[in-house]
Amino acid sequence: MFIRNCWYVAGWSDVLKGQELFPCQIANEPIVIYRKADGSLAALQDRCCHRAAPLSIGRREGDHLRCLYHGLRFDETGKCVEIPGQDRIPPQARVRSFAVIERNSWIWVWLGEEAEADPDLIPPTVALDDPNWIFRHGFMDYDANYQLVHDNLLDFSHLTYVHPDSFGVGEDWALTRPKVTRMERSVRVERWLPNQPVPNHIKAETDSEALDMWMYYDFYIPGVMVMYSEGYPAGTSERFNGEPPVGIEPITRDVTNQSITPMSAQRSRYCYSWAPRLKSGSTQLADGMIAIAEMAFREDREIIEAQQRSMNLAPDAVLVPTTSDTALGQFRWILERMLKAEQDAKGDAVVQFAAAQA
Amino acid sequence: MFIRNCWYVAGWSDVLKGQELFPCQIANEPIVIYRKADGSLAALQDRCCHRAAPLSIGRREGDHLRCLYHGLRFDETGKCVEIPGQDRIPPQARVRSFAVIERNSWIWVWLGEEAEADPDLIPPTVALDDPNWIFRHGFMDYDANYQLVHDNLLDFSHLTYVHPDSFGVGEDWALTRPKVTRMERSVRVERWLPNQPVPNHIKAETDSEALDMWMYYDFYIPGVMVMYSEGYPAGTSERFNGEPPVGIEPITRDVTNQSITPMSAQRSRYCYSWAPRLKSGSTQLADGMIAIAEMAFREDREIIEAQQRSMNLAPDAVLVPTTSDTALGQFRWILERMLKAEQDAKGDAVVQFAAAQA
Amino acid sequence: MFIRNCWYVAGWSDVLKGQELFPCQIANEPIVIYRKADGSLAALQDRCCHRAAPLSIGRREGDHLRCLYHGLRFDETGKCVEIPGQDRIPPQARVRSFAVIERNSWIWVWLGEEAEADPDLIPPTVALDDPNWIFRHGFMDYDANYQLVHDNLLDFSHLTYVHPDSFGVGEDWALTRPKVTRMERSVRVERWLPNQPVPNHIKAETDSEALDMWMYYDFYIPGVMVMYSEGYPAGTSERFNGEPPVGIEPITRDVTNQSITPMSAQRSRYCYSWAPRLKSGSTQLADGMIAIAEMAFREDREIIEAQQRSMNLAPDAVLVPTTSDTALGQFRWILERMLKAEQDAKGDAVVQFAAAQA
Ligand code: FES
Ligand code: FES
Ligand code: FES
Repeated sequence: MFIRNCWYVAGWSDVLKGQELFPCQIANEPIVIYRKADGSLAALQDRCCHRAAPLSIGRREGDHLRCLYHGLRFDETGKCVEIPGQDRIPPQARVRSFAVIERNSWIWVWLGEEAEADPDLIPPTVALDDPNWIFRHGFMDYDANYQLVHDNLLDFSHLTYVHPDSFGVGEDWALTRPKVTRMERSVRVERWLPNQPVPNHIKAETDSEALDMWMYYDFYIPGVMVMYSEGYPAGTSERFNGEPPVGIEPITRDVTNQSITPMSAQRSRYCYSWAPRLKSGSTQLADGMIAIAEMAFREDREIIEAQQRSMNLAPDAVLVPTTSDTALGQFRWILERMLKAEQDAKGDAVVQFAAAQA
Repeated sequence: MFIRNCWYVAGWSDVLKGQELFPCQIANEPIVIYRKADGSLAALQDRCCHRAAPLSIGRREGDHLRCLYHGLRFDETGKCVEIPGQDRIPPQARVRSFAVIERNSWIWVWLGEEAEADPDLIPPTVALDDPNWIFRHGFMDYDANYQLVHDNLLDFSHLTYVHPDSFGVGEDWALTRPKVTRMERSVRVERWLPNQPVPNHIKAETDSEALDMWMYYDFYIPGVMVMYSEGYPAGTSERFNGEPPVGIEPITRDVTNQSITPMSAQRSRYCYSWAPRLKSGSTQLADGMIAIAEMAFREDREIIEAQQRSMNLAPDAVLVPTTSDTALGQFRWILERMLKAEQDAKGDAVVQFAAAQA
Repeated sequence: MFIRNCWYVAGWSDVLKGQELFPCQIANEPIVIYRKADGSLAALQDRCCHRAAPLSIGRREGDHLRCLYHGLRFDETGKCVEIPGQDRIPPQARVRSFAVIERNSWIWVWLGEEAEADPDLIPPTVALDDPNWIFRHGFMDYDANYQLVHDNLLDFSHLTYVHPDSFGVGEDWALTRPKVTRMERSVRVERWLPNQPVPNHIKAETDSEALDMWMYYDFYIPGVMVMYSEGYPAGTSERFNGEPPVGIEPITRDVTNQSITPMSAQRSRYCYSWAPRLKSGSTQLADGMIAIAEMAFREDREIIEAQQRSMNLAPDAVLVPTTSDTALGQFRWILERMLKAEQDAKGDAVVQFAAAQA
């Protein structure tokens, strides 16, 4: 079960440079996305209404898609506009269309009713071409439920144990707890880590031996993270009394966008970008940063897929939470509350429909 | 669910030249077939009644089969005739046998009661060694339900969109509709396509630029097609007023036999042959014809397997038929009616049995 | 469904020479085993109680295991003794531990309640370093239920048909029946086979053309076999009137230990060793013996996995037993009776619990 009234990241928008058809699967829904002549995107159900062939095996004809099984042609709203050899086109001959928006280098798809798709609900991620940053980006797929990846990203106590080789951070990540704030559709995580060895991925950015690290991120439904990390001279954390640093310039600063989209219950797509500041970075630093991050992501994937296999073997095992689970607990609470709200609304609709029939 | 009272094609009979054991699976039923000393075939359930080892891993002993797990020996009717180290053979020690016939180069197996197997119900296919034709043949397996392959073969509107490179036919295949006639256990499809570019697979047979194509086939349950295609001088179609051409010799003529047998709900075996006439053909033409056909079959398989995956993702999706679905609709109607008749008969048998017991 | 109150073989104990973590799966239960500083073994559930990551991906810290996801540390009893960054450790923070014993070169795990694990119930197998024998050993996995392997080992009529090339024995194995005795937790199988061609695996041990073979084994729950085979001069069987030979020295003598452990319903681990006597053997003979045995085991696996696939296709097929099924029937009877006893006990416990609550 997945929530439908939210924007899912379908992929990086650079997969649609020209006339390509981009097939993807979001929450069990096969979708084909393409770029129209005016540069905007169209997203249709990737299943022909005739005999279910994927439209992504089909062909562009202007802004229309022709199914390459028996030739039905659909316009960008999903309406069938041609059935070869047949004059009458029945009104039910159509495929679903989805609200789709390209924003900040990502393709966002709203799974719920198109009319309710509110672009203001798209999280404020940072575009790859933002002039303040030097971005690198990529994606990978997980054989695991997307919530296990959420859990990973919402609890950085794992950095100490999973990423000693890649990020090379110390024990403080596991020993201290961040501040966690639940919002309407997101969770905010903030923390100071004073006097840290400089993590591997930003070593090239500074000569300092140690930094006070300030890190904060918002994690939005259904699974989008924007995280900023900043290094300050030792003592800064104390100076600000553990509150956010204001009015001073960090020595290092980087940002990462990460999204995790459920393809199915046990398969998920993870898109990520990472960037140092243009001001203190370099293309070399950016290259090194993403190489270390990708090493870390593979470390995460190994443990998360093992966790999924372990859970499949004992789906009802009782688990014992710890205090490091706060953020992920809050996020699961939001997801579950939304899921329930959507199901209740569906139930209401059925009741109203039944009442109207009676 | 599959119908049982019909002849299924198990494979090409040239797989049984000598003492081979040919294992196959028809409608979830494992079957082992072999050639007896008198040249006729025997077909037994490929599952020993002792502890279920496949008899196809066993050994021929004359016309008998010995299970090579613990040595039970079965005669060609499936009766156990030897249990090593045991004198008494219980009467229930037997495996099912199936009616099996070699006809026109195919092995035909009747899944229902052997007593009801009527050889006259075997469709009139053309044998590989028929002196009028130069045949080439082969087979391939599909990861798809066999009815999706039926659908493909019963609606040639797909030729325009799936096979522009292989057969190289034009739009008329999609724009016109054939004549469809439902018979007792088959569907007949006939059509003229006037003034066609010569399809690739018969290009070597004629110098003509364009032909009036006349094509007709019968598609028999459970999934056997015999199709003839003929090329005539432009104007012939008009001359016959769209009726079948009678009393004149075609410029080109070819025939194809095709069968599709369900192995399981999502796996199917496709056997095919194709031949030009001896009169106007050549071995070279025959070779080229099957090469183009096999390219086309791979194109079909790609879209059909994608269609199956798409349907698996949304088994209850509502589909919208078109007027090109007439033949496949008729054929599905026949299959479903037969399936229902078989189930009703089974129900009756149970009721009668219960009455007899009461 | 598997019985729990018995010792399962987890593997050869030489997999734990040093600080290794040995992951295994017994009856769907993931278990991690390691050797403590005092040389004895510890076995814990291989699923962290925090968020289910396998502990076998974790790290030894002395006799403790640290989960390398978020760093929880467990002692050798499974009690969580450290949660990084958290003072209070809730009492339910623990993983199950299992009674585990290293004996005669095998790691034995008791799946039931640790308190009830009685080391006296471990079958009397022969250790690899027993000075009377020259052992070779190995293991292989089966894609089949472990009971199908039991069946194979409890009915040697298959030797004639499955192993003519490897062991090279004659028809008598199939034509005669052994003496079968059911014990409390095992089945004993004994037989003379007079005047046998010398089996391939002991050919190097004697110049005799033929031997009277005496073979006896005990097959213990859940699936452990210890078998002795002895070759005597022709006539010995008659001399002892078919009773066990007493007070005379065999010409050849070998012993084999074999265990089959269910990993899941359709996957099993098979551990085996085989040895000639030191007295009449040699390392060369031992090498040749295991090579022939492993050839035979691959022959067994081929037919058993085919048998499993055949049964999966028709789970309800009615099978017809023969008189060679006596031993396996007795063994299945023991397993089923124990399974039922365990389930009844569980039912009783629930009833008593309910009564205590009422
Ligand atoms: S499946 Fe798309 S046109 Fe037939
Ligand atoms: S399984 Fe065929 S003889 Fe035993
Ligand atoms: S899963 Fe083991 S510490 Fe979290």
